[in-house]
Amino acid sequence: MTDVTTAAEYSDAHKSRAKAWFERLRDDFCKALEDIEDAVTGPNGTSARAPGRFERKSWERPGDAAGTMGGGGVMAVMRGGRVFEKAGVNVSTVMGEFSEEFRQRIPGAAEDPRFWASGISTVIHPNSPLVPAAHMNTRMIVTTQGWFGGGGDLTPVFPDAADTDQFHGAFKTACDAHDPAYYPKFKEWCDRYFFLPHRNEARGVGGIFYDQHNTGDWDADFAFTQDVGRAFAKVYPEIVRKHMNKTWTTDDREAQRVKRGRYVEFNLLYDRGTIFGLQTGGNTEAILMSLPPDVAWP
Amino acid sequence: MTDVTTAAEYSDAHKSRAKAWFERLRDDFCKALEDIEDAVTGPNGTSARAPGRFERKSWERPGDAAGTMGGGGVMAVMRGGRVFEKAGVNVSTVMGEFSEEFRQRIPGAAEDPRFWASGISTVIHPNSPLVPAAHMNTRMIVTTQGWFGGGGDLTPVFPDAADTDQFHGAFKTACDAHDPAYYPKFKEWCDRYFFLPHRNEARGVGGIFYDQHNTGDWDADFAFTQDVGRAFAKVYPEIVRKHMNKTWTTDDREAQRVKRGRYVEFNLLYDRGTIFGLQTGGNTEAILMSLPPDVAWP
Repeated sequence: MTDVTTAAEYSDAHKSRAKAWFERLRDDFCKALEDIEDAVTGPNGTSARAPGRFERKSWERPGDAAGTMGGGGVMAVMRGGRVFEKAGVNVSTVMGEFSEEFRQRIPGAAEDPRFWASGISTVIHPNSPLVPAAHMNTRMIVTTQGWFGGGGDLTPVFPDAADTDQFHGAFKTACDAHDPAYYPKFKEWCDRYFFLPHRNEARGVGGIFYDQHNTGDWDADFAFTQDVGRAFAKVYPEIVRKHMNKTWTTDDREAQRVKRGRYVEFNLLYDRGTIFGLQTGGNTEAILMSLPPDVAWP
Repeated sequence: MTDVTTAAEYSDAHKSRAKAWFERLRDDFCKALEDIEDAVTGPNGTSARAPGRFERKSWERPGDAAGTMGGGGVMAVMRGGRVFEKAGVNVSTVMGEFSEEFRQRIPGAAEDPRFWASGISTVIHPNSPLVPAAHMNTRMIVTTQGWFGGGGDLTPVFPDAADTDQFHGAFKTACDAHDPAYYPKFKEWCDRYFFLPHRNEARGVGGIFYDQHNTGDWDADFAFTQDVGRAFAKVYPEIVRKHMNKTWTTDDREAQRVKRGRYVEFNLLYDRGTIFGLQTGGNTEAILMSLPPDVAWP
């Protein structure tokens, strides 16, 4: 674990800036995906559909009068688009108290169980088996300590070396601007994290993953987290556009449905965010928005 | 936990009898499902298919010369039948040692980590949304202690009171022949076990569940476990036959695919057998045979 400083540095102003950033990133990213919906020529009959649009639904977490519990979020979901079969972009900002069980496992929570957390999380499942699925999330957490975490990874059905290089290259550029040690460390962390031991398989072709990130310089750490989000929001649409007009076969689609089964296995068996969210009374609908729309275990 | 006696009573002869029973139950149950494949008239175009048949595939667990590690099993799977989209019946008999992590949690394993386990497990996913999915498993476990466990539950998409009564009635009759206290206790255990807290939903309409069952009379406990298996192998085909010739709609099918998503969520998030099997190096293909063939998270 990184040495994290006390939350005294994580002021209300910092919280507001982080929350506003996650919301702006959400707006920019949703726009980029909607632009793709307009631009695609629509293989496999998908041009017959209207261009997909995000629908937003807000939810609230039960609160108290003192404002130490509560908050909520907005789920932005596109379903049945020309390119995107299901794309979810959730932003939430919540306050609460960790249960006894979690207090020993979360930095700074043993001293005081209260927390504040804000973040963006997105998972995209395209119609086309030739367009990779992808995930990105970044978050800021405050207990008696404070830190950033996040990352992004790419899950193609048929890995393409050029896509993999482009995806990793974007994150490397974002990382290198802050510290040349970040990319190798966070890439390796991603490879270790997004792995299915029971299949002896990686979930996809990786990306970066970082957590409990606090260098003692909030502005630098926030700028890094912003750059991770920007890098993803730029490179993923670029990769989608390279493949979105290609026709696929029913065999390609079946391979995609099976690959999506592995995605479900990972998220429900291993993903800390999913399990943590469900166990701490998070919004089930928002948390499980990550699950693919059409899946096979033949 | 039931007070379990030492494994001295669980002789090699007992192990052989239990193993032989699980294999015979498998054969009888597979035959009952294949008879249904021959008998169905085939709604929604399924009569165009050949009647489904089970295919068997054996697997081995890495062993040692002393015979304290090893064993294996047989997966019997029917895919793409007229009635059964995917039906798996696994029988396995394995020997090994519990890891440090498990020794404190498994009765009798703290004293000696070696175990022997044999059992049958079946999960059936019909094509028709009007035919309930079902699960049954029974097993005998030997550490320095020994016990039986198992149960069965029914998961309809559209619960039918007559089916529910018939399914529960069959288990109640099986239980009452041994002890009138069994059915209420094991029904309640099933309701508690097959529950998805994050959805605040039951997995299905229940059945029975029992574990660490050792009354001190091996013959009685074995006879009870046999009766549980027989009850399921008789009542489930009866329920299937009541509904198998009914035509369903595409909306019914979509509801089934969503309901199956809940089944996946339960098995990967909560099912002890699944998580235990995957964490102890069990056969992944056999363990995840329980997952439905075609699933939606819209």
